[in-house]
Amino acid sequence: MEALKDVQLLAFDVFGTVVDWRGSVAREVERLGLGINGAEFADAWRRRYLPSMKQVREGKREWVNLDTLHRENLDAVLEKFGAAGRLDDAAKAHLNRAWHRLDAWADSVAGLTRLKSTYVVTTLSNGNLGLLTHLSKRARLPWDCILSAEVFKAYKPDPRTYLGVAQLFALQPQQVMLCAAHAEDLRAAAAQGLRTAYIDRPQEWGPDVRGDVPNESDQFDVLATDIPDLARQLGC
Amino acid sequence: MEALKDVQLLAFDVFGTVVDWRGSVAREVERLGLGINGAEFADAWRRRYLPSMKQVREGKREWVNLDTLHRENLDAVLEKFGAAGRLDDAAKAHLNRAWHRLDAWADSVAGLTRLKSTYVVTTLSNGNLGLLTHLSKRARLPWDCILSAEVFKAYKPDPRTYLGVAQLFALQPQQVMLCAAHAEDLRAAAAQGLRTAYIDRPQEWGPDVRGDVPNESDQFDVLATDIPDLARQLGC
Repeated sequence: MEALKDVQLLAFDVFGTVVDWRGSVAREVERLGLGINGAEFADAWRRRYLPSMKQVREGKREWVNLDTLHRENLDAVLEKFGAAGRLDDAAKAHLNRAWHRLDAWADSVAGLTRLKSTYVVTTLSNGNLGLLTHLSKRARLPWDCILSAEVFKAYKPDPRTYLGVAQLFALQPQQVMLCAAHAEDLRAAAAQGLRTAYIDRPQEWGPDVRGDVPNESDQFDVLATDIPDLARQLGC
Repeated sequence: MEALKDVQLLAFDVFGTVVDWRGSVAREVERLGLGINGAEFADAWRRRYLPSMKQVREGKREWVNLDTLHRENLDAVLEKFGAAGRLDDAAKAHLNRAWHRLDAWADSVAGLTRLKSTYVVTTLSNGNLGLLTHLSKRARLPWDCILSAEVFKAYKPDPRTYLGVAQLFALQPQQVMLCAAHAEDLRAAAAQGLRTAYIDRPQEWGPDVRGDVPNESDQFDVLATDIPDLARQLGC
């Protein structure tokens, strides 16, 4: 791939792309024994993710990190499921950190390890640095570096995040490739001149729900079935 | 050590503590064949480090990263050694990135690997994120996370760096231990409530020069001969 020969750094989205947030959160919820459907709870929690960041993105709210947004959203979802009074504060704080304990998709560690032999491989996630560090340590994700929206005080798809990664490494945007399972994230990165790799994760929202997949007008540089397939296509 | 049982995160100074900046820079300078004494050049370059950051720390200058300060200092030192006209710009840029290619002390990888089994282990260096990532990848330093003055837009010993690490991980200052070969860095961390481990690196400035060692009134929590000794004292 001639156009990709200049790429030096791969920046990975994490939730959904590298780790299975839905299955992991669902399991922790089920384990509480509250009689709540874990997957439904995980979906409801996650659906509040984009709207809660939007307020920060639009400047209607000062910067707060994702742990804080997750906790506000958790409180709202517990209320909705009629379970707010059934967990004490320590249990809620522990459940909120379920996002620090997400399991990787089965191919992630092997795929990242291959890519690392050729590229600098970093996260670029809206998760905060503490969350990403705990998650990566537990799942043994072999990042060269952990970068977060928190470093730029801006949430994706804010251009400052994509351009910020390039700038930190003194690279041009086209020397950086965003790797993500979400077309919106990739479109925003492409608009700033980054290279893009779509990684298909058909199970992100469970067996019957279509995620944020590319449409006919999208022209991402790579379409991969998983992370090892991305490595294969990049010649690693 | 009862007082240290709450420590969850170790933040490491890098230059001198984990890597041998002097030997590494000296070797790159010698290799240029300019007839310059590598160690003398490295010392002259490094001696400009603290004064150049001081301007930023005192607010006399906007934030610039360490690659930028290193380059300004390199230009000044080349001038002083009468070699400014003997390298083209690409060669100067390459030499400036010698700081991205520093070799670790022989015990660093083994020591950090042991500590990582019990603690979250991160950098806290004035080096910029790109520099630290390149250096760590090359030297295979097994960090859980890479943190830099660049994240806080403040250079050590600014309190925002030490307290910033604790805040990113939602920890109290006494749950974080700074590990460094320099008493000044440790004193500043202790003043903010962090735990402290002094790691002796008698060769940092070469065989005959005493570095920034503790004095009689310093009371650091651990005095270690190297990183594995720190691991041993912490029971890892």
